Amino acid sequence: MSESTSRPSVTVLGLGPMGRALAAAFLDAGVRTTVWNRTPGRDGELVARGAVAAASPEEAVAAAPLTVVCVVNYDASDAVLRRAAVTTALKGRTVVNLSADTPGRARDTADWAARHGVRYLDGAIMTPTPTIGTADAVFLHSGPADLYEEHRPVLAALGGTHTHLGEDAGRAAAYDIALLDIFWTAMAGYTHALALARAEGVTGAELAPFAHGIAAILPPLFTEFAADADAGTYSGELNPVTSAVSTMAHVVHASEAHGIDASVMRVVEGQARRVIALGHGTDGYTRVAELIARR
Amino acid sequence: MSESTSRPSVTVLGLGPMGRALAAAFLDAGVRTTVWNRTPGRDGELVARGAVAAASPEEAVAAAPLTVVCVVNYDASDAVLRRAAVTTALKGRTVVNLSADTPGRARDTADWAARHGVRYLDGAIMTPTPTIGTADAVFLHSGPADLYEEHRPVLAALGGTHTHLGEDAGRAAAYDIALLDIFWTAMAGYTHALALARAEGVTGAELAPFAHGIAAILPPLFTEFAADADAGTYSGELNPVTSAVSTMAHVVHASEAHGIDASVMRVVEGQARRVIALGHGTDGYTRVAELIARR
Repeated sequence: MSESTSRPSVTVLGLGPMGRALAAAFLDAGVRTTVWNRTPGRDGELVARGAVAAASPEEAVAAAPLTVVCVVNYDASDAVLRRAAVTTALKGRTVVNLSADTPGRARDTADWAARHGVRYLDGAIMTPTPTIGTADAVFLHSGPADLYEEHRPVLAALGGTHTHLGEDAGRAAAYDIALLDIFWTAMAGYTHALALARAEGVTGAELAPFAHGIAAILPPLFTEFAADADAGTYSGELNPVTSAVSTMAHVVHASEAHGIDASVMRVVEGQARRVIALGHGTDGYTRVAELIARR
Repeated sequence: MSESTSRPSVTVLGLGPMGRALAAAFLDAGVRTTVWNRTPGRDGELVARGAVAAASPEEAVAAAPLTVVCVVNYDASDAVLRRAAVTTALKGRTVVNLSADTPGRARDTADWAARHGVRYLDGAIMTPTPTIGTADAVFLHSGPADLYEEHRPVLAALGGTHTHLGEDAGRAAAYDIALLDIFWTAMAGYTHALALARAEGVTGAELAPFAHGIAAILPPLFTEFAADADAGTYSGELNPVTSAVSTMAHVVHASEAHGIDASVMRVVEGQARRVIALGHGTDGYTRVAELIARR
């Protein structure tokens, strides 16, 4: 019994694929883990591995000083955390909300927590479910630094790298949506390329090795274009936006000649053409960052 | 004199940044190089390094058994190659067209070449100008395999890797536009993320290292999704499109709350929502490849 009380303990709310992976990683690390999910029946395997199934979310959060929440978005996390009984049970305890949503929702939740005496950290999981508990997992955190330091040892059970980005509760979500913006837009480009290649008689298996080459040239360009954006100067010496639009037009034309929807690239090309029309044709493509945010 | 005639020789038409890089790489490798550009005055540095400046394109192509063309697109290459005097001078000689355009334009040019007794290879340069002449350059070629083998030793002077993709003249362009589709769409996502991050108080320098992490997770996903597309089955077990749209909506919402144009992600999200509405919500996002190409 004394072993049980001295072991670190955590509660996991939300047992979708990611929530189950988090709970499993805590169990694997020897953390006493209590679980709850709105829809019953998701905890069977976790209980078999030693998790404690709570009968209610208030019982769940009362079982540990730290509650990790991982549900679909902040409407869903609000629906649990803002139940009166749960809020009462959380008083003086810590919530780490690893659900995904906007920076505004993260800040709103931090404000709510402050008003109710709940200690609050916001976070984001940047890697897919299979990485949880491994060295490949990437977690971002924001909120009070001392609170993060206090819970860091237990969070380390989730594996991978954990980065505290600052006191602003919205900061993890800001990085999260910016990175997901890159990810899903890139995926949209790849998915479109698979369709276009197929129409040209090129299989995915044939295209993929060359697509790896594209992924490999991105990191140095990301660094270069980040510096351009920070400086507000967009060098187009080697690749002016006037050249880029020519390529974009080829993608649109070849796609539509095959009956393939090219609306993503049409938008991308249109923004690039507006940059040229506004007098910045010798700049690099990333000057679009100014166009889309201009006031 | 005998040394001069036994040296391999090449003509380069088009002296934009990429054309100049190609000519410089040939010169560096000891290839006798004749150059011509529609707009005069681009050949000064090359001539100083040993290039022969031709007075006309017909004189240029007559100076070597192999002509490499690198201009902005196939309207521009047609405007040179299809001049009567140039076509006559090219008879029995080989053209490698490294200009970028659609697969259809490449096939059309191959047909024109066949009708006029011009030996024709199409090609694409997949890496930026500074890679030319280095191990990092990537060239794709298509057209008659024996013609490619004949000229491969001279083309090797350009450095990097050269891949012959098949006899269909359009094949290099097909890979080219599919890969540029991935590249520019990913760049659009990154550029948008820079604007969104800035609105959240996150600099490009802060975001870039995490963006590198996104680039790093792409290759295995590219391989996985290529197999899905080839098989026509899109596994969404760990990341169904219903989850993806939630993330996309966060990007749109957070962007527009800052007054940032989110039209690219709006299109991406809209296609994903159509996949769900068509009954494929448990599939992965890449099922969009079927939607955008459906007939």
